Amino acid sequence: MKPVTLKEIAETLGISITTVSKALKDYPDVSKKTKRLVKELAQTLNYKPNAFAVNLRTKESKTIGLIIPEVVHHFFSSVIKGIIAQAEKKGYLVIILQSNESYELEKKQLDLLFSKRVDGVLISLANGTGDFKHLNDLMAQETPLVMFDKIAKIVNCSKVIINDRKAAYTATKYLIDSGCKRIAHFRGPLLPQNSIDRFLGYKQALVDHGFVYDPSLVYILDAMSFDEGNYYAAQLLKDHKDVDGIFINTDLVAIGAINELNKRGVKIPDDISIIGFSNWFMSSVISPTLTTIDQPGYLMGKTAFKLLYKEIKKRKNNQAVVYEEVELPTELIIRESTK
Amino acid sequence: MKPVTLKEIAETLGISITTVSKALKDYPDVSKKTKRLVKELAQTLNYKPNAFAVNLRTKESKTIGLIIPEVVHHFFSSVIKGIIAQAEKKGYLVIILQSNESYELEKKQLDLLFSKRVDGVLISLANGTGDFKHLNDLMAQETPLVMFDKIAKIVNCSKVIINDRKAAYTATKYLIDSGCKRIAHFRGPLLPQNSIDRFLGYKQALVDHGFVYDPSLVYILDAMSFDEGNYYAAQLLKDHKDVDGIFINTDLVAIGAINELNKRGVKIPDDISIIGFSNWFMSSVISPTLTTIDQPGYLMGKTAFKLLYKEIKKRKNNQAVVYEEVELPTELIIRESTK
Repeated sequence: MKPVTLKEIAETLGISITTVSKALKDYPDVSKKTKRLVKELAQTLNYKPNAFAVNLRTKESKTIGLIIPEVVHHFFSSVIKGIIAQAEKKGYLVIILQSNESYELEKKQLDLLFSKRVDGVLISLANGTGDFKHLNDLMAQETPLVMFDKIAKIVNCSKVIINDRKAAYTATKYLIDSGCKRIAHFRGPLLPQNSIDRFLGYKQALVDHGFVYDPSLVYILDAMSFDEGNYYAAQLLKDHKDVDGIFINTDLVAIGAINELNKRGVKIPDDISIIGFSNWFMSSVISPTLTTIDQPGYLMGKTAFKLLYKEIKKRKNNQAVVYEEVELPTELIIRESTK
Repeated sequence: MKPVTLKEIAETLGISITTVSKALKDYPDVSKKTKRLVKELAQTLNYKPNAFAVNLRTKESKTIGLIIPEVVHHFFSSVIKGIIAQAEKKGYLVIILQSNESYELEKKQLDLLFSKRVDGVLISLANGTGDFKHLNDLMAQETPLVMFDKIAKIVNCSKVIINDRKAAYTATKYLIDSGCKRIAHFRGPLLPQNSIDRFLGYKQALVDHGFVYDPSLVYILDAMSFDEGNYYAAQLLKDHKDVDGIFINTDLVAIGAINELNKRGVKIPDDISIIGFSNWFMSSVISPTLTTIDQPGYLMGKTAFKLLYKEIKKRKNNQAVVYEEVELPTELIIRESTK
């Protein structure tokens, strides 16, 4: 479905383009009835105010949009670098928008990117996103969309992912193999798929190795920040004196936890072993250095752009688009925070 | 000067708007002579392809552009957060572009933001930027521009800065006061003003306290990365066995240097004292914790948006715009890496 133009609305209603334009802008010299008709039709056809402008310039803007939950997150930093590197090779500029984990903001930003006529959109979903109409709407207007990392399984588009469940299973199994008997998990919020999958991998590893799954050992974090790492490490010590291992959803939180445990004189890994997720470079600088899952952010960014570029070219040449799902490998990096 | 429209070009040449549009797009049914005339005039008047579209929609896009050298830099992360927080309060979306420290890319991005009709631009200059015509051109087209952190003194617009020279002087003086006799400096590249000013502050503090300035103690870094911190710390140990203090341009590099010195068994601060710049949260996590200059990134972002917003409103209401230069305070944060 191509974007609807003012002209098409005008022709459908048998009135002039100017009248349509004025009606949409609530000019006083257009009748209420006409305004209502125009607005209803515009809404039905999903008209966006700028669609008219598209014919005034070349169809390719050589610009793509990127929506990520948080620019400052170390993992997304690597993704951004990968995307920009690959985009520059093909002469594309990248507009970056930060959804702040908000579904409402993500919706607005997708609208903005459409109105700015980007050639395609790369997105990693906000934690707050549980409805996907905005994504389907964008694709219905023939704007290529590729999701990466935080994806929605039910949206039909190309995706770049890692196997979060498998990676979390590997991490938890490593804690078990190294002798941990009571293993806690600091997980992410409830909605995002990767936070669900990492939790499920943790749980499965416990069950497969004869542990009884204890929900009170699972802490649900919100901001996934350094400060939350401090806070929940302190909380865990209060709640469970017998915990001897923690699998933590992301390195930034794990480093916060190490910081707090160090302060309180808890010995890592002798008293408590810790595994993080993402392999941020600070993980090898903190004392003790952090055992973690390496998540290939840079490669993920490059791959996501490549998929998007392929789709842009195919659509331009009126070729059939086949959606692809690329799964990138992860790796357990063993350092000092585990036995 | 308002952006030139197709209509104005058409009227000037006495031809139709359609012909102008076709000529600019190299349609075959327009004569070579007309094409040449149109293109020359368009160039002379600094016509941008989308200027025509501006009348088709409301003049305010409620979107601003932000160009920064590197999204992933911890200092700019805080600035981005401050800008977005303030922009959201006023209902603005922020388009972020990363210049990768490249002047060429910065120019392209400024063009892109103009063509996307942002209401204003916030910029921190790339290290490679030594010419400022692109900034003056943007302002000539009545697009409000505010510079922050990495500014050009000769561009006449609103600015948010810190006093880099004074802060660097304070840092270096602290090393001197704590007993350091041979103080090295890891500086940033040659062009950016803040890197120049921090160097000058370092030098002035030495001279004011009876030291002989030794250029061989000043290392000019390029990427300002963790890896460069590793590399130049090793280099410094090779070149100057007598150095007992280093003032380092930014915390990320300082943490890289600490990492390298720790590995080599150099005692901090007993053998070498270190002061960084920016007060990244990792500075209080690394061992030893890092003495540094606190640079108010979040406040800088908020302030920059406020100045931009004020200018957007003034221009909208046809009021006179007065450029402001706001200097934010910095603070020496004393931790374990100095005596």
